[in-house]
Amino acid sequence: MGKKIVIIGGVAAGPKAACRVKRLMQDAEVTIIEQDTLFSYGGCGIPYYVAGDVSDEAELRSTSFHMVRNEDFFENAKGVMIMSGTRAMAIDRKKKTVKVQNVASGEEQEVPYDTLMIATGSKPFILPIPGVDLDGVFTISDLHKAIEIKDRIARGKVDNAVVVGGGATGLEMAEAFKDLWGVKTTVVEFMPQILPGIVDKPFAAMLTKHMRDNEVDVFLNEGAAEIVGEAGKVVGLRTANRTIAADIVIMATGVRPRSEIAVDAGLQISPMGAIVVNERMQTSDPSIYAAGDCIEVMHLVTGKKFYAPLGSLANKEGRVAGDNMAGIPSTFKGAIGSFIMKAFDVCIGATGLSLDAALAEGYDADVALTAPSDRAHFFPTESIVCFQMVFDRRTRKVLGVQGFGPMGDGISARIDAAAAYISMGASIDDFGTLEMAYAPPFSAAIDTINAIAYVAENLCDGRLRKTSLESFLAWMEDFESESEWVVLDIRHLIEASPFVEKFGAEKWLAVPYSEIRARYKELPQDKILIIMCGSGTRSFEIQSFLDSVDYPNTLVVSGGLNMLRRMGVDWYLG
Amino acid sequence: MGKKIVIIGGVAAGPKAACRVKRLMQDAEVTIIEQDTLFSYGGCGIPYYVAGDVSDEAELRSTSFHMVRNEDFFENAKGVMIMSGTRAMAIDRKKKTVKVQNVASGEEQEVPYDTLMIATGSKPFILPIPGVDLDGVFTISDLHKAIEIKDRIARGKVDNAVVVGGGATGLEMAEAFKDLWGVKTTVVEFMPQILPGIVDKPFAAMLTKHMRDNEVDVFLNEGAAEIVGEAGKVVGLRTANRTIAADIVIMATGVRPRSEIAVDAGLQISPMGAIVVNERMQTSDPSIYAAGDCIEVMHLVTGKKFYAPLGSLANKEGRVAGDNMAGIPSTFKGAIGSFIMKAFDVCIGATGLSLDAALAEGYDADVALTAPSDRAHFFPTESIVCFQMVFDRRTRKVLGVQGFGPMGDGISARIDAAAAYISMGASIDDFGTLEMAYAPPFSAAIDTINAIAYVAENLCDGRLRKTSLESFLAWMEDFESESEWVVLDIRHLIEASPFVEKFGAEKWLAVPYSEIRARYKELPQDKILIIMCGSGTRSFEIQSFLDSVDYPNTLVVSGGLNMLRRMGVDWYLG
Repeated sequence: MGKKIVIIGGVAAGPKAACRVKRLMQDAEVTIIEQDTLFSYGGCGIPYYVAGDVSDEAELRSTSFHMVRNEDFFENAKGVMIMSGTRAMAIDRKKKTVKVQNVASGEEQEVPYDTLMIATGSKPFILPIPGVDLDGVFTISDLHKAIEIKDRIARGKVDNAVVVGGGATGLEMAEAFKDLWGVKTTVVEFMPQILPGIVDKPFAAMLTKHMRDNEVDVFLNEGAAEIVGEAGKVVGLRTANRTIAADIVIMATGVRPRSEIAVDAGLQISPMGAIVVNERMQTSDPSIYAAGDCIEVMHLVTGKKFYAPLGSLANKEGRVAGDNMAGIPSTFKGAIGSFIMKAFDVCIGATGLSLDAALAEGYDADVALTAPSDRAHFFPTESIVCFQMVFDRRTRKVLGVQGFGPMGDGISARIDAAAAYISMGASIDDFGTLEMAYAPPFSAAIDTINAIAYVAENLCDGRLRKTSLESFLAWMEDFESESEWVVLDIRHLIEASPFVEKFGAEKWLAVPYSEIRARYKELPQDKILIIMCGSGTRSFEIQSFLDSVDYPNTLVVSGGLNMLRRMGVDWYLG
Repeated sequence: MGKKIVIIGGVAAGPKAACRVKRLMQDAEVTIIEQDTLFSYGGCGIPYYVAGDVSDEAELRSTSFHMVRNEDFFENAKGVMIMSGTRAMAIDRKKKTVKVQNVASGEEQEVPYDTLMIATGSKPFILPIPGVDLDGVFTISDLHKAIEIKDRIARGKVDNAVVVGGGATGLEMAEAFKDLWGVKTTVVEFMPQILPGIVDKPFAAMLTKHMRDNEVDVFLNEGAAEIVGEAGKVVGLRTANRTIAADIVIMATGVRPRSEIAVDAGLQISPMGAIVVNERMQTSDPSIYAAGDCIEVMHLVTGKKFYAPLGSLANKEGRVAGDNMAGIPSTFKGAIGSFIMKAFDVCIGATGLSLDAALAEGYDADVALTAPSDRAHFFPTESIVCFQMVFDRRTRKVLGVQGFGPMGDGISARIDAAAAYISMGASIDDFGTLEMAYAPPFSAAIDTINAIAYVAENLCDGRLRKTSLESFLAWMEDFESESEWVVLDIRHLIEASPFVEKFGAEKWLAVPYSEIRARYKELPQDKILIIMCGSGTRSFEIQSFLDSVDYPNTLVVSGGLNMLRRMGVDWYLG
């Protein structure tokens, strides 16, 4: 018999590494220790199981060729032993053994290893508030809980759901409750935006509006103070502002690395509690590897370690761990934090750094926005999409891209291309000439990713001067905040006139784009002209022209009305 | 008045450069000389206009905000003068003038320039066969021809259409004829495959099958010998094998650079007739720039110049020319040959080099194939997609990627990410860990692009031994060609049994994947086992296992039955 390889954890990274190492080293004795009886599942599919898109939980545990990945499957097809229902209690690094306990019987034994891998994943963070132990409070941390949630809904026990936390999992669960089951659903988020730390505020605002348009209540800046119960069961969630009725409360307040066994074994641990590994997924003990949601990884933009608990990374890390345990020195260099999410009819994606994150990291960061057609504007299926590009003014490097548009793979295409390019250090100039495959049903001759790079380049070179969407919105709330501003709306008159009528010509002027060259002398020279169009593109052209005729006091609203109205402003007309 | 900038050509690169340079240098006097009266249009949209997806040709000449880009638009909105209906006859580089002629009146004049740009585009290649001047023979070279074609169809004058040439434009036109108008349509291609030089044979075969499934006749290896006419009108197309009835014949046999004016002016020209430019789009005369379909560009994989007449590149090159004419030293480093096409319900895409091209270039090239789910296999909208990755065994660099799958943006997403990564020199190992944005509605935890990289890596490292789809198909035609081969079908018995029944157990054995470890001793040791599954993934696992138990004579069918049956083999069952 060959090397004894023991892997603690059987959800994603663990099984991936086990199968890979066995394939490379058929004489190895590979054992997975898993405390649960349900394992090797697609945890990211849980919201779709609850929503009913996936009808049976066994589908989440099946291969693409429809075999359930149970103990027999691993033994017969993969040659990998699974000790399920078995908890790993402690690692003895000197003796090279793992003490395990059968969860049902309490029986303990020692499992010897030559090489060990820790793939213990993450655990949900539970808010320290009263009521979290009430019946009806759930986390989305394993399949049993998902089955129980779906069962309660299907039995008609859930009329009101509250999701605590507006991260990706929380929002996906909210959609699941509302979309299939018609449950009255509320999302409560402590931060001033949903998807905090993932997208910037304008993108979060567009998604919030879409959630609300689909009758999901979203309360921002509201912390959950207490889960209210009656007779041991949840009846509501109390915040500082209100109490919301609830038969079910989903705690979707993030996850933390599950690293206790590594801590106890004296392995090196990061300040936030993740296991420290090198590029070969090796911990501070060369005989022990780790991968998945329990480790920290290198951020390919910042060059700093960060915590990225994602199923897609867990699988890649697991494969690299498997390689190395078999003696193939492959490496996992890091991650860039790519993100994509469906919400009802839209999708939102991001890669790299947000503007907030880039500024916090100390970059000389700025952001370009645009909202063009996602494919040839004459092609019938075209739609407006919104993109931003965060870049560093000093190095011209692109730091991050975010996108928002109709559901489909169009946003993915740009986010994925951007992720590949950014991870290789691409600049805004590289993005300007990036060759996106072109035909009218798929893209525009100047793809959105090129278009946003052009905006970034014009900004970086000082040719484009803009105001942010936030500043513009603040001014719309209080015109006196910028007393010299006046909008110059260059859209068609039929689009612009209602705004002139509503706000008055001293706040909102309309001169169509194609008439500016002839009529610019009508414009006030003692005001700051806030140039407005659909996406910001025409506005930049007009700014360039006005500069040349001594009207230098102009600012472009980057992203334009296409973005503003998707953010849900109440003053938008038409 | 500022610099005089004259641009010859008003379709794509010309207008883009004109608008850009004017924006950067508002005092410049920018003039476009265009022989046609219809200009600044999306030529790639012509098939969709003929198909009816685009109802009016003016949409192809409009901006995304619905203004027609005519002479007035350019003058008023862009500050650019268009001399339309005016042909550029000759360039006098010493005097810095262009001799032009009004097409209608024949009147000539000299237009002086400080900086000149040539954006004369391409001209269709016309086969030197009898009958090309008959009424009813068309190229897809300008809007007038497109209008005339659509008019004839709409008036019921077209029952039978023949497209000569199975390149992208020819196939898009064939779909247009068939899909909306129900015209009996035939594609005749001289080469042994459609999309020659763009995709490799297996991908061409899958598309050919789909075209035929949609009732477009496709004849390969058939040159057009003569266009047959009666009373001056087309009635058919004759090949060596047959005469096909036709009321209309579309010559879609490729394009050549339109560079006569540059040749006559003594500018440097490539062997195939394209204008030679540097990265700043400057010709051998520093006062003359060129961009678009009349130039050659650097191939970012081979490092050699090539001809890439694409609207998307023309726009990018035009912008770079505009920058440089305005004194901004931006560069266009080259292209990678990205390609995407819709055909009925599928799409096909490619970037970088095909296997044929890579071998012709002298790379130590090999190709990996796979056919997995395009998103989480448990998500309801998942579909099988087919991908290949061409790589260099010596440097491990990825040279090209091709994809085939259902219509949508999913193939684009992978092709675009691959284009970005390849253009930065990414290796198969980089592709293995490329972070594609993951959620079940968009991708699998191990994205197809990662999956195909894994296959490439296993191949490159000698762990995976395969046979090609072509070799396998040849054996299926003639079992004696490889007398020692026997298929080992490891799919579910319900899938495999009909094949065993049809071909006999001496040609087609079935042992399910999950039973091989227990039953491998049943397998013949004196044969070469051709391991078969859906995509090739399970086959590789089984090959690895069989190697370890002294069954080394195995080959995997890379791409598996998912690809084989999409190629339209007649022996496929179920």
